[in-house]
Amino acid sequence: MDEPLSIVLFSGTDDKLQAAAVIAAGAAVLNRPVHILLQYWALDAFRADRIGSDHGLAPEAGAAGAAALAQAAADGKPHWSENLRQARELGGVEIHACALSMDLLHLQPSDLDPLVDGVQGITTFLAEAGDGQIVFI
Amino acid sequence: MDEPLSIVLFSGTDDKLQAAAVIAAGAAVLNRPVHILLQYWALDAFRADRIGSDHGLAPEAGAAGAAALAQAAADGKPHWSENLRQARELGGVEIHACALSMDLLHLQPSDLDPLVDGVQGITTFLAEAGDGQIVFI
Amino acid sequence: MDEPLSIVLFSGTDDKLQAAAVIAAGAAVLNRPVHILLQYWALDAFRADRIGSDHGLAPEAGAAGAAALAQAAADGKPHWSENLRQARELGGVEIHACALSMDLLHLQPSDLDPLVDGVQGITTFLAEAGDGQIVFI
Repeated sequence: MDEPLSIVLFSGTDDKLQAAAVIAAGAAVLNRPVHILLQYWALDAFRADRIGSDHGLAPEAGAAGAAALAQAAADGKPHWSENLRQARELGGVEIHACALSMDLLHLQPSDLDPLVDGVQGITTFLAEAGDGQIVFI
Repeated sequence: MDEPLSIVLFSGTDDKLQAAAVIAAGAAVLNRPVHILLQYWALDAFRADRIGSDHGLAPEAGAAGAAALAQAAADGKPHWSENLRQARELGGVEIHACALSMDLLHLQPSDLDPLVDGVQGITTFLAEAGDGQIVFI
Repeated sequence: MDEPLSIVLFSGTDDKLQAAAVIAAGAAVLNRPVHILLQYWALDAFRADRIGSDHGLAPEAGAAGAAALAQAAADGKPHWSENLRQARELGGVEIHACALSMDLLHLQPSDLDPLVDGVQGITTFLAEAGDGQIVFI
């Protein structure tokens, strides 16, 4: 269990980002290293100027699902970015932007929220995953 | 191969639920323990009053994909919930509702189909995953 | 690290297919065997008569995301199918069609692009995954 839990975070909707944050936080509580690689729409969601914006939900959420999540936010449940910040404070959580997606979306490191530690290639990410689990979200 | 195959089941469309059921059944045939954690829209799909309802498909299914799946159902191909029931009869398949999602969707254990064994936190789920694979669907 | 990286490729949108191709190529660069099982809409995207067609994007891509990917294609960035072809040339990449999905979509092996090595059942796929990672995309 010294191997990291590696998460390829692709999806940019608030529900999947929250699911990823919960998994990362759970692994951090277990003292496991967590490596997150941001691709595509998840990377876009980590732009400093919009990380707190409404990023929508998976289509199957429907009106009832959207209302439930809006109520949770109104009740003060933390945003996924806040959950990730808390997970990072436990230590061992690294968040990198995928180099190819940075290029694709014409982003610079300065465009990203400080939660992001830097830019990484997929090969490095996979090599560092070792024998640990890799989860695609 | 004594480690479980762990599935975080997030998506609530019938095609992804069927894909999860097929993977769970395949692992059960191989005598592997299977641990499923239901989150968000997958959890909603396991509500006792709607598990057999139409839960829609991934957007890319399109009209042709929807017609193919409707034809399969008309031909008597089993529903994903039936596939999971059969996988459970092989033994080793556990299905838990994620505690955070239960809270988010204001669900009680009595709201859920009997396929669900109980409620579990993400940390327990990850700890029980051990070194086995974790698949997010 | 002699165990394969196994990818259950379910999604049929061009962004997720590209993400899968990038992960497969990265693992191939690391000399890891890569096993891909095509299900549902990903299998449909590998039909010989439409592999190069526009398969759409995840809903959260939005207009800005679609424009970024269209620009990348116009700039000559390779299609996901080309990335997979190059990964295969590195060796160790196998792509199979899921037998259940072939049946569901009424496809014959001759309907599929030559990138696909053949048809495989989920149990064989899971058995060959061994202790290696399994990623669902």
